[in-house]
Amino acid sequence: MSFRVQYQELVPPGRPGNGNARRGRLTTPHGVIETPIFMPVGTAGTVKGVLTRDLEEMGAQIILGNTYHLWLRPGTETLRAVGGLRKWMNWQGPLLTDSGGFQVFSLSELRKWNDEGVEFRSHLDGSKLFMSPETSIEIQEAIASTIMMQLDICPALPADRKTLEQAVEQSTRWAERCLRARKGEGALFAIAQGGLDVGLRREHLARLASMEVDGVAFDGIALGGFSVGESPELMAEALVEITPAMPRERPRYLMGVGTPRDLLNAIASGIDMFDCVMPSRNARNGTLFTSRGAVHIRNAQYARDARPVDENCACYTCRNYTASYLRHLHNAKEILGSVLSTIHNLHYYLNLMAEARAAIEEGIFEKFRLAKFEEWQPET
Amino acid sequence: MSFRVQYQELVPPGRPGNGNARRGRLTTPHGVIETPIFMPVGTAGTVKGVLTRDLEEMGAQIILGNTYHLWLRPGTETLRAVGGLRKWMNWQGPLLTDSGGFQVFSLSELRKWNDEGVEFRSHLDGSKLFMSPETSIEIQEAIASTIMMQLDICPALPADRKTLEQAVEQSTRWAERCLRARKGEGALFAIAQGGLDVGLRREHLARLASMEVDGVAFDGIALGGFSVGESPELMAEALVEITPAMPRERPRYLMGVGTPRDLLNAIASGIDMFDCVMPSRNARNGTLFTSRGAVHIRNAQYARDARPVDENCACYTCRNYTASYLRHLHNAKEILGSVLSTIHNLHYYLNLMAEARAAIEEGIFEKFRLAKFEEWQPET
Repeated sequence: MSFRVQYQELVPPGRPGNGNARRGRLTTPHGVIETPIFMPVGTAGTVKGVLTRDLEEMGAQIILGNTYHLWLRPGTETLRAVGGLRKWMNWQGPLLTDSGGFQVFSLSELRKWNDEGVEFRSHLDGSKLFMSPETSIEIQEAIASTIMMQLDICPALPADRKTLEQAVEQSTRWAERCLRARKGEGALFAIAQGGLDVGLRREHLARLASMEVDGVAFDGIALGGFSVGESPELMAEALVEITPAMPRERPRYLMGVGTPRDLLNAIASGIDMFDCVMPSRNARNGTLFTSRGAVHIRNAQYARDARPVDENCACYTCRNYTASYLRHLHNAKEILGSVLSTIHNLHYYLNLMAEARAAIEEGIFEKFRLAKFEEWQPET
Repeated sequence: MSFRVQYQELVPPGRPGNGNARRGRLTTPHGVIETPIFMPVGTAGTVKGVLTRDLEEMGAQIILGNTYHLWLRPGTETLRAVGGLRKWMNWQGPLLTDSGGFQVFSLSELRKWNDEGVEFRSHLDGSKLFMSPETSIEIQEAIASTIMMQLDICPALPADRKTLEQAVEQSTRWAERCLRARKGEGALFAIAQGGLDVGLRREHLARLASMEVDGVAFDGIALGGFSVGESPELMAEALVEITPAMPRERPRYLMGVGTPRDLLNAIASGIDMFDCVMPSRNARNGTLFTSRGAVHIRNAQYARDARPVDENCACYTCRNYTASYLRHLHNAKEILGSVLSTIHNLHYYLNLMAEARAAIEEGIFEKFRLAKFEEWQPET
């Protein structure tokens, strides 16, 4: 895997911007990823309701799978038997898997962790399971993902200094064990914790950036532990201080974030990669992202609206269906409402990233970011 | 609308078959329909989980909408405002709507009928509603369907002679009122009742066949009241006696039927058109129709089965996904399991009809029918 920053934001005198936004290219054995990029989330081996054909059509370059879910079902042996997740789910492009740690802490019960790993009960059948850094890598290698993530500890915010320090210490030890456990060809990213404590974040980043096992370092660095309880403003402020401390020559991934506004703010701080369930989950609940802001499609105002939900959108849904029809599908709880809305929202996120890349190339990213904030208005 | 029987089954001396199967072409303002044909059911304005793009790709020639559901939601005024259902749901081809009567009797509560129409309570909000033959036509004209159905009374089987006679009498009176109520361009089919009583069926068919209002007759005749409690064998036996009594020069539609076996038996009796929720509903429950018979995809035997669910199938699902993956999607209750399985099952039904048409053209339909019955075996 190789990464090259192709454009760094240019900020001529008198123009706004901090010069941190960057436009890069990540080359993997499974395909090229133009950054900044958003990765649609396919929790249990499918981006919910979306054919891989539609993912390709909307320009998805890389998708995400969840190690915790895939470990519980179908399990490591089946994943190996079917030749890995990409082949199984008919996705030709690159695949990133999280470590499973975040879901162990958010979904399962009775988890206890020590230096060895995390003990927990399956949220499906209550069975007792144990995940160590080595287990996580073993599962991710059975999944045969393009990019694997280290096992880490991710505290919810607000958290006290001791909790944050413990998370940093444990995550650092597990980072090294993950590097050591890797046997296959998959790339591996480290995860920095530290909450909103800029000093702790920078310290953790420095340790992960310099970490090597047998001369091999991490292929990229991620920020975990954001969007876990703090306000979007506090996150944005922290990112401006923290992101520039991430290695410049490696891809920078902000995990589990966020709204379109969060993404543009994070790009302004220098982030390259994102994932979030928000566009797909909100789609299923009837909240659609549009060029004029978020829209609640169940609202009565759309009952006979014969326009697409976003007249500026080129997605399959907006090319073929009206707001009125989408509203009906959601009211009638029809599967197609989830399908068409997910296609739209993911297209919106991917297209926003494409626009951001073009704006960085043209040296007008800051202007672009502020213009978007103007365009996004509360629904009337 | 025009209909032409292009091939009548040829049964040379010494070959099996009764010579009733027929291969026709129904030409409508919205497209040509090659018969025998199966019509996928789109109850509430969508074939559940399937994009119209996929319906086109699988060769659907005509689909069905349910007047009862569309009347309750989104309602007649919205249907008019959005320009009818075909435009709203982005379906270019012909559309058939039932009268709503069957759902009034099967879904709603407290229904009472008299000569004027049916009073019932909505299954959605309990509101009291009244449907007359004139209301049914008015709604179907708001839907702007290609082929409308008359309002009828459909008794469940077994039913006593008096119930069947009452249904025939009332349906006949409503048939004439529907013919009279029609204002627009939509075609209109009559529905014959009479249960398994061949004499009553033939009598009803004769009355409907000769019925005219201002010199205009029904564009086609349907058989209602089958697959409502009787065995498939009794239905097939009755159809052999009844179908040849339907007008030869008009399309013959068997409503709400059935399994692949039912369809081939009915084609052998001379039926041209079918609709049924079975392929789509069973798909969502994990039962898939294949060239070797019905398959329950949740069964453990498919856990690591790397073949498509039907190796002889050319549908999008079988071209791109394995039985193992489909099983996982159903076990994980993923939307995509319903989507991919519905695409497969509808493709199976449509392809079976295409094969039946070819067999009739070649004069080998009876051989084809019996060969299919041999191929369909219980799952081992």
